[in-house]
Amino acid sequence: MRFNRAAVYHAIKSNYSFALSEDELVIRLRVGKGECSAVDLIYSMKYEWTIRRETARMEKKYSDELFDYFVIYKKLADPRFAYIFLLHTAEGDLYYSENGVTKEYNFNLGYFNFFQCPYINSADVHREISWDRQAVAYQIFVDRFFAGGDAGKKGYVNLKWGDLPNPKSFAGGDLEGIEQKLDYLQGLGINTIYLTPVFESKSNHKYDIRNYFAVDPMFGGDEAFASLVRSVHARGMKIILDAVMNHCSEELPYFQDVVQNGKRSPYHSWFFIEGDKADTKKGNYAYFAGCKYMPKFNTNEPKAQDYLISIGKYWVEKYDIDGWRLDVSDEVSDVFWRRFRQEIKKVKPDVLIVAENWHDASAWLRGDEYDSIMNYSFTKACLDYLVYDVFDAEAMANRMSNLLMRNTDQVNRMMLNLLDSHDTERFYTLALKSGRDIRSLRCALAILYFMVGIPCIYYGTEIGMEGGYDPDSRRTFDWNVSHWNLDIHETVKRLIAVRKQIATDAISFSAEKGIFKIERGEFLLAVNNTKSDLLYACGDRKYEIKSMDFIILNLINRGLV
Amino acid sequence: MRFNRAAVYHAIKSNYSFALSEDELVIRLRVGKGECSAVDLIYSMKYEWTIRRETARMEKKYSDELFDYFVIYKKLADPRFAYIFLLHTAEGDLYYSENGVTKEYNFNLGYFNFFQCPYINSADVHREISWDRQAVAYQIFVDRFFAGGDAGKKGYVNLKWGDLPNPKSFAGGDLEGIEQKLDYLQGLGINTIYLTPVFESKSNHKYDIRNYFAVDPMFGGDEAFASLVRSVHARGMKIILDAVMNHCSEELPYFQDVVQNGKRSPYHSWFFIEGDKADTKKGNYAYFAGCKYMPKFNTNEPKAQDYLISIGKYWVEKYDIDGWRLDVSDEVSDVFWRRFRQEIKKVKPDVLIVAENWHDASAWLRGDEYDSIMNYSFTKACLDYLVYDVFDAEAMANRMSNLLMRNTDQVNRMMLNLLDSHDTERFYTLALKSGRDIRSLRCALAILYFMVGIPCIYYGTEIGMEGGYDPDSRRTFDWNVSHWNLDIHETVKRLIAVRKQIATDAISFSAEKGIFKIERGEFLLAVNNTKSDLLYACGDRKYEIKSMDFIILNLINRGLV
Repeated sequence: MRFNRAAVYHAIKSNYSFALSEDELVIRLRVGKGECSAVDLIYSMKYEWTIRRETARMEKKYSDELFDYFVIYKKLADPRFAYIFLLHTAEGDLYYSENGVTKEYNFNLGYFNFFQCPYINSADVHREISWDRQAVAYQIFVDRFFAGGDAGKKGYVNLKWGDLPNPKSFAGGDLEGIEQKLDYLQGLGINTIYLTPVFESKSNHKYDIRNYFAVDPMFGGDEAFASLVRSVHARGMKIILDAVMNHCSEELPYFQDVVQNGKRSPYHSWFFIEGDKADTKKGNYAYFAGCKYMPKFNTNEPKAQDYLISIGKYWVEKYDIDGWRLDVSDEVSDVFWRRFRQEIKKVKPDVLIVAENWHDASAWLRGDEYDSIMNYSFTKACLDYLVYDVFDAEAMANRMSNLLMRNTDQVNRMMLNLLDSHDTERFYTLALKSGRDIRSLRCALAILYFMVGIPCIYYGTEIGMEGGYDPDSRRTFDWNVSHWNLDIHETVKRLIAVRKQIATDAISFSAEKGIFKIERGEFLLAVNNTKSDLLYACGDRKYEIKSMDFIILNLINRGLV
Repeated sequence: MRFNRAAVYHAIKSNYSFALSEDELVIRLRVGKGECSAVDLIYSMKYEWTIRRETARMEKKYSDELFDYFVIYKKLADPRFAYIFLLHTAEGDLYYSENGVTKEYNFNLGYFNFFQCPYINSADVHREISWDRQAVAYQIFVDRFFAGGDAGKKGYVNLKWGDLPNPKSFAGGDLEGIEQKLDYLQGLGINTIYLTPVFESKSNHKYDIRNYFAVDPMFGGDEAFASLVRSVHARGMKIILDAVMNHCSEELPYFQDVVQNGKRSPYHSWFFIEGDKADTKKGNYAYFAGCKYMPKFNTNEPKAQDYLISIGKYWVEKYDIDGWRLDVSDEVSDVFWRRFRQEIKKVKPDVLIVAENWHDASAWLRGDEYDSIMNYSFTKACLDYLVYDVFDAEAMANRMSNLLMRNTDQVNRMMLNLLDSHDTERFYTLALKSGRDIRSLRCALAILYFMVGIPCIYYGTEIGMEGGYDPDSRRTFDWNVSHWNLDIHETVKRLIAVRKQIATDAISFSAEKGIFKIERGEFLLAVNNTKSDLLYACGDRKYEIKSMDFIILNLINRGLV
């Protein structure tokens, strides 16, 4: 069999070659599955390539359906690093350089075609924030979580708590309510809350903002927010806000100025207007999706960038928030996000910048734009395995490895992993629709809390809340404990407790006789998504895993956790 | 035969998916060679994916050793564009999405895994400069080209014109000399000159600069430069200068301040100093390669960035230069180059930013850093084909296609293609060393002038100048016409004349019976690098191509050009 040359992949300055710090480089190599018995890295300080080179064995760390991924972590005495790969294959040893896979390699001409890390500049290193590895997150749709005061007394409320919402419903949830429930959240193990937008806006979701410098009075205004942040921080918790920088409300004064004054307005260029005055009936301007009431910002325009950056900085500087979740981030200019990142990180390097890109976002995750994204590819993998029956255990292990290899280590660790959100149907509901039950959600949660990255559940997941697409995904939280699914509640609590004991970011995925496994240091998660109960052998012991259930093992004492 | 899934590659926001303008997207797909009879793009406006989709056939435009590349150019009515691929294979039709190659594809869940161009923001579009397609360039090592006055009268000159240089030689070439030879260069067809550094420096090469704001008096000072630029521009020609921003001379006053004052100097952080004072004997600081006299700038430091950017802007603003060639560009921080690009392009969008990355530089060529690089991979391909005998005609066609697919169209068009430079042995010399002769250079030149991108020859190539590595690659230009290789001179002139008739940037590479071919619109170049004369059939006509020679055909009238 001829070695599959077409499967081999490496690229410098990418998720295949990246710096963790000024003196540590990670090098990954992708080859066809089973095609290499071993891979060596041949390397040198760049300017010594023809004089002295060394060799190091790489480790086969991950495999997916098609590929094996070999990885090596290199501490560099000098950041000017040149390398090629020596592939041990059934065809014999082959070299892999920028010029492809070859039988021969002329080292004397290596300066033309070795791979290289030309230098590691500190300003280019993607720094991991300090708190991601401990973070356990909870997303709250503010109007629906809890009303601190009497929701019935709020004039704008038109939805009775517990009734099903429509797109225009207001239920009265607020920041005071969240503050009152911090005990509850902490009891669960949550230490990070991520709120959908809280700024002044006429809608319940507040993705159409008319004043970015004020917390909406519906939610309690600035004071309630200041109080919430104080309480959050006093408990050692973190808070992430939603930054809507792709678009605003038609009510934003700057946009209204263009409605009134057209090209005479200094803000005309802040938007994409066709012609003179913006006309909200006609919609003669770019707007988000199909929503004329959400005019799109022109984030190519430096003055508009300045304004949006001033918002980003304001809430960090004044309230010391811990993260920004970036709404519709992929439709915003890269030039803007680069400036945004630089300015925000200058104020507080520990601010997490997590973006709403639903797709492979590696182009945005090189350290110059976001820290991470909402990991909807993880969501999809869990659905394909546990709900849609597209994946068996092996396919699931393959996909999880594949997702991990899409991004750098630091991005993976800052990734916001989720099963659902305000923008999707709830995972549990999708399971029910597919003839599954709560056990699918239980297994998904186990995977979520074992995955590298920040696990994030959507409010109510822990009590078995249901909900289809928006507006149904935004139901009010049912605080009547007798209505809760206590098994799920306990499961979440227990999984978070285990999560907090996991002391390593090492992770591996595998499949064995229909069982999907994740190993993290001393802990092993084994999921049985088949229709039969299965026996799982760990050394000389056997453990039963019920159909659509999971077990967690401590690999040191071989006990169930 | 199972379809080679591992060969399939596409990535958004890369050389596989890029915008040419706000409403034109280029999509490329790589598949295993011969594995797809056809490929369709299934696409829609992103928010209409589940409602209405269209299909378009892609074109197989390039092939290399392992892969076929399918390409489509899409004019977009809306810049929010979603797509997947339908592969027609021997295994049947297969889908290719972000989730890989699959037999089935659930369009209703496409928002999880279609490929996409989420938006095209004008600030992110990599703009092609206006003059690259016409540019025919000539690199000059200033001290060795021509002395405008009497070189013998210059006090610093220590090399008799015509003698072989050593690293410390000064021959007296200057800017006045270049100005006097503009007629000569224009006569050859050259319209763009690229000069090695001209700023104040004690060396002959001037890569160790002590004053970035003054032209070296050896070269005639600022006045000679102003006069040269005026003449260049009056002739409709362009001038590119060499920006040395990775390092400076130990004589730079800012560095000297650190030598004197150590940490008390405000410039301490502009360099990488170990300890207090910089000590040029010890070399307790980062420096270029092995050269202590070239301290490395810390381009992570905003103040150092400001300084270097002010240099970049100064020569554009004051002298209206047309391009910067960036020395040792890959060791400088990305953060710096992004700022540099933004500031320079703000002053004059038409400035070409061409960098000295010897390796695959696609990570730097996304439109936020450089426009292009010195195409040393092209150099290596020509050597492998015409000098080292590593490539036959087919391998050469494969490599050229492969190189083109590494980068976007606009980068390819701005690429500085070269056969040699002040940093390499001369191509002709390498040919001679390998037992070849001037015919190898002739063929290489033909390929150079047919290639997409800016062809650039190193001074003296056109008269058959020889030279090994530095300092030998920097011999004095022999202005005695009777010593010239007039055949090469005529060849260059003729090839440039043909180049200027090529009206398209379409290009294709192929091999036929040992002949390597490049097609550009109505012109065809056929190179015979074998040891035998060959007959080339074009339609019903046959043309003889001598061993190690080439012919150019006009495909419309089938006449030799």
